[in-house]
Amino acid sequence: MGTLRSDGYPAPVPVQAVEFQDDFWAKRIQLIRDVVLPYQWDALNDDIPGVAPSHAIQNFLIAAGEAEGSFGGLVFQDSDLAKWLEAVAYSLAAHPDPELEELADQVIDLIEKAQREDGYLNTYFILAEPEKRWTNLRDWHELYCAGHMMEAAVAYYEATGKRRFLDVMCRFADHIDSVFGTEPGKKRGYPGHPEIELALIKLYRAVGDERYLKLSKYFIDERGKQPYYFEEEAKERGDRDIKGYWGKDRHAYYQAHLPVREQKTAVGHAVRALYLYSGMADVAMETGDEELLKACRTLWDNVTKKRMYVTGGVGSTAHGEAFTIDYDLPNDTAYAETCASIALVFFAQRMLRTELNGEYGDVLERALYNGVLSGISLDGKKFFYVNPLEVWPEVCRHRNDLQHVKVTRQGWFGCACCPPNIARLLASLGSYVYSADSRGVYVHLYAGSTAKLQVGGRELEIIQKTSYPWDGYIEITVNPKEELECTLAFRIPGWCRQSSVKVNGREIDLAAVTQKGYARISRTWKPGDKVEIDFSMPIERMQAHPGVRENAGKVALQRGPIVYCLEEEDNGPNLSDICLPRDSELIAEFDKDLLGGVVVIKGSAFRSADPFGDDRLYRPAEAGYRQVEIKAIPYSTWANRSPGEMLVWIRQC
Amino acid sequence: MGTLRSDGYPAPVPVQAVEFQDDFWAKRIQLIRDVVLPYQWDALNDDIPGVAPSHAIQNFLIAAGEAEGSFGGLVFQDSDLAKWLEAVAYSLAAHPDPELEELADQVIDLIEKAQREDGYLNTYFILAEPEKRWTNLRDWHELYCAGHMMEAAVAYYEATGKRRFLDVMCRFADHIDSVFGTEPGKKRGYPGHPEIELALIKLYRAVGDERYLKLSKYFIDERGKQPYYFEEEAKERGDRDIKGYWGKDRHAYYQAHLPVREQKTAVGHAVRALYLYSGMADVAMETGDEELLKACRTLWDNVTKKRMYVTGGVGSTAHGEAFTIDYDLPNDTAYAETCASIALVFFAQRMLRTELNGEYGDVLERALYNGVLSGISLDGKKFFYVNPLEVWPEVCRHRNDLQHVKVTRQGWFGCACCPPNIARLLASLGSYVYSADSRGVYVHLYAGSTAKLQVGGRELEIIQKTSYPWDGYIEITVNPKEELECTLAFRIPGWCRQSSVKVNGREIDLAAVTQKGYARISRTWKPGDKVEIDFSMPIERMQAHPGVRENAGKVALQRGPIVYCLEEEDNGPNLSDICLPRDSELIAEFDKDLLGGVVVIKGSAFRSADPFGDDRLYRPAEAGYRQVEIKAIPYSTWANRSPGEMLVWIRQC
Repeated sequence: MGTLRSDGYPAPVPVQAVEFQDDFWAKRIQLIRDVVLPYQWDALNDDIPGVAPSHAIQNFLIAAGEAEGSFGGLVFQDSDLAKWLEAVAYSLAAHPDPELEELADQVIDLIEKAQREDGYLNTYFILAEPEKRWTNLRDWHELYCAGHMMEAAVAYYEATGKRRFLDVMCRFADHIDSVFGTEPGKKRGYPGHPEIELALIKLYRAVGDERYLKLSKYFIDERGKQPYYFEEEAKERGDRDIKGYWGKDRHAYYQAHLPVREQKTAVGHAVRALYLYSGMADVAMETGDEELLKACRTLWDNVTKKRMYVTGGVGSTAHGEAFTIDYDLPNDTAYAETCASIALVFFAQRMLRTELNGEYGDVLERALYNGVLSGISLDGKKFFYVNPLEVWPEVCRHRNDLQHVKVTRQGWFGCACCPPNIARLLASLGSYVYSADSRGVYVHLYAGSTAKLQVGGRELEIIQKTSYPWDGYIEITVNPKEELECTLAFRIPGWCRQSSVKVNGREIDLAAVTQKGYARISRTWKPGDKVEIDFSMPIERMQAHPGVRENAGKVALQRGPIVYCLEEEDNGPNLSDICLPRDSELIAEFDKDLLGGVVVIKGSAFRSADPFGDDRLYRPAEAGYRQVEIKAIPYSTWANRSPGEMLVWIRQC
Repeated sequence: MGTLRSDGYPAPVPVQAVEFQDDFWAKRIQLIRDVVLPYQWDALNDDIPGVAPSHAIQNFLIAAGEAEGSFGGLVFQDSDLAKWLEAVAYSLAAHPDPELEELADQVIDLIEKAQREDGYLNTYFILAEPEKRWTNLRDWHELYCAGHMMEAAVAYYEATGKRRFLDVMCRFADHIDSVFGTEPGKKRGYPGHPEIELALIKLYRAVGDERYLKLSKYFIDERGKQPYYFEEEAKERGDRDIKGYWGKDRHAYYQAHLPVREQKTAVGHAVRALYLYSGMADVAMETGDEELLKACRTLWDNVTKKRMYVTGGVGSTAHGEAFTIDYDLPNDTAYAETCASIALVFFAQRMLRTELNGEYGDVLERALYNGVLSGISLDGKKFFYVNPLEVWPEVCRHRNDLQHVKVTRQGWFGCACCPPNIARLLASLGSYVYSADSRGVYVHLYAGSTAKLQVGGRELEIIQKTSYPWDGYIEITVNPKEELECTLAFRIPGWCRQSSVKVNGREIDLAAVTQKGYARISRTWKPGDKVEIDFSMPIERMQAHPGVRENAGKVALQRGPIVYCLEEEDNGPNLSDICLPRDSELIAEFDKDLLGGVVVIKGSAFRSADPFGDDRLYRPAEAGYRQVEIKAIPYSTWANRSPGEMLVWIRQC
């Protein structure tokens, strides 16, 4: 296995360090292995009837000289294969599978053969427009695809110790380094779709070549300078309109409106933004750049305190798949791309490295359990690209401003960025549970699991027993190989208003040891030490900041990290008609037969007495209500049964 | 003055029959005369700095050979001048003005000179593409412009007795009749934008030529037949894509998806739809076509009971300026074009002729006082094209799906259909107050005024004294020239829950005489007879049908026919934060200094206690509220002060 260079900050543990043994994640990760990866392999090979063909493998076959034909799909089609390979790498790391590894090696063989002599690698430009390489960084995603390939190569090296793919991507990185930079004769460009910034840092950590760090830093520092590179290259291409598709908002769409250190609000395409911010955080950590880190914190605050759905969804408009303005979070026209929630998890993980602060862990958890997981069906074969918080299927079929909202999950997409992205995130989930450095271990997520960790070179096993996220009780067994003095820090979730921690049966004074949302317990740990954590997990009626006009007078039900929704299947049509009394009792109940086993929330609410008996469109308000029983399910599991309405924010009365 | 042919149904009284003497309409109609018509004349002459040039007069000057140059503006630019001339005609009818009439005659002179020998008249095709006449009925609005010119010509003939313009338009109608129809060698086309259907009926009534009735009926009957004419003509043009801009929804957009008798729901472009339905009602009345009338009733019910805003706005989506589906009435993305509410008034007036039924009068009144009037500023120089029911200016500036929403009224528009449309409606308002036939007079609107009417050829003066719409008490003096036995029928507004009518001091048993919303009083009327009507006019909290998801839990304040709204100027920002207790007292108060003198509604409501003290985006719901005083103003008067938020539907708590 490969090992990573350290930047001195606590590092996420390797994927394979954590073995999930719970009912929640273990089966989902197994689903990735057993269903999602094979399904997506078929999709990449255009072998799934009735869904948009990917062309991704075929493009590489042609570029490698092993098939005839022309390029198919979108200009960034290579990235789908890259993300699939990255997911395969994480899966192999945690669960060796010689057959899958053999398949991956064959794909890598193909990739190597497709690579040009000078290191260049992108099937679109190799096959379709070789003379146009690097002439439109704004739109053509070459650096984006390169970044995804680099991430995959590093993950594969980490998983298998095999260097071939890594070497292929180092050659490409070297080529890119020869093309871009401030040195005379180089292009002063940067990617229209950020991604390579964080990927180059991974490559740098894997092989130690400082040029990759420098190149990443260059892309970040160059961004947003004037004259705008995207306009300069458009002039060079002789474009009649140098502004391109996005018109007056174009600089913001690409986060190129200002140098990144001057950006204060999250604007433009949400996935691009969050990949960029992730890369910025990486570079800030690697270079000790406090100014850059401060920019990351400012942007983090803006995203998570002004522009994020309760599900951890981000990017509230379909137009540009973008952020809009503070508190503008419409529920029905929401975009909230699955990839954007995934990118928010990436950004959160990096911010959590910069500072052990529960705010970061809380958002990571919120996005993971809700806005990310909603992107994949329980059977692993259908996906949401867009994740609204309120759906009225009939109107989605008729209204142009809701065309982006699908009311059923889709088998694949012409632009299929989300399915392999969710696969790679879930396959790598082990690395999100803990981080560690020479001083201790930091527990970010709770899940039944056994972890084999290293603290300052010494071995430490941590076993979690819990029914999280359905229950807030976690029993942790700490097994250092031998006595170990270190800190174990446990995240006290922001959603939790009452918590207790016992060590070997003795209650800890949490107020005394908790800083910024982490209870830090420093002691000499002995094999068999027990930590019992109890997070009180009542059903919470969450309200939004009053600035979120759309949610005025409404509540979202949340229990632990899980955000709930109403579905038509359980509650009948016209969910907006339901109002939940402030004081009605709500009950949480585990239903093992529903949606793979979930805690549902039940209670009494009101509906209009005789909604369709009176056909007047407008009439004097009358207090005619009838009591109804409602049932809410976890938001992430919606649209796994019959298609119908869905609603997160429920009127309160 | 000209006189109209009668179809046997009660006829609207001539514009000049009613002289307004109230504080509400009289000053608005004077504003049309003193400000709006001169302002719009300047606009049509491109003489208003800073607004989009119209080119309308210039196009006619060029077409008449009196100026050099090429066509400017949109393909339907002639219609703006037509509507202005129609408004001038109504204004002249009620208030003779030799100078204005001289100006109109000069314009008519120009129009006559622009007309081609064969009767054809459309400056776009005369100037820009003479060879393309009648080759694209779908998109190019030739028949639409012809219709507006015909309406203007009839109005001018009615007002002045001068036939020149009427003759010009008869020649054009004869030409159109020679081109279209079922006879061999004629085109089987019909207009993409209905309008000529109702105009031809006006022309028919003015000159009695049955060909015009037949042509109108032909356009209506031909519509929606297969093969679709718009596709046939597209093939003939050799278009690569015969579908045109509107793709899969194209037939519905033009109301050409089905023969009109088979249409059950209002679909597509709202103005087109309502002009079409108006024409259908006209043809049904002229021909006694019960089947066609039934189609009108079905469409009326769908529009007014499923697809109309509480303001009388219609067409809930900007995409295609169109109807969507039942109960889909979003407040912020609403389109609700001013012209569509005007067209709804036209349709209502016709339906009211077919049957004396308060439902029609109620909708007419609702649209007139709210969705129509909101289209023009109090100073007569600024206009709304789009009339949303909820506005958050900051988000309108940033969000693509709100680009159609303007937060301030505009001086003119590149597509300036609305300003002259509202001018012609208000200038002709006199004809909406009463209708009459040989059996009696039917009172539809209440306004301080003196009317000189005819019942079966005998003269009757009706004087209304009232502060309507601010007060529901109306004193009516009935002055027949000599004793007159006839029915006077008074509309009992649907918004009124308690009403009384006295004749010469004696209370009438309303239940006994009221049918379908009209109190019908048949007696021998003597000069000086007094009718006192008292409509109780409390403030009503209106609720929407529960199917209108957007308005669940919300109320709209209405008093009499006036729908109210909150504005930021009176209530501070974040209007959605306000909730109105079910039982709080609301007070109506006349403020003579506000917005030209309006009744405002005041009361106590609640707001979040400390809206910005807690910066968490999501938090457990707490009952922290503070009491605030709110003030609501008539919806039609919003955006006459400083720009800001506006809200019609208020949360109830």
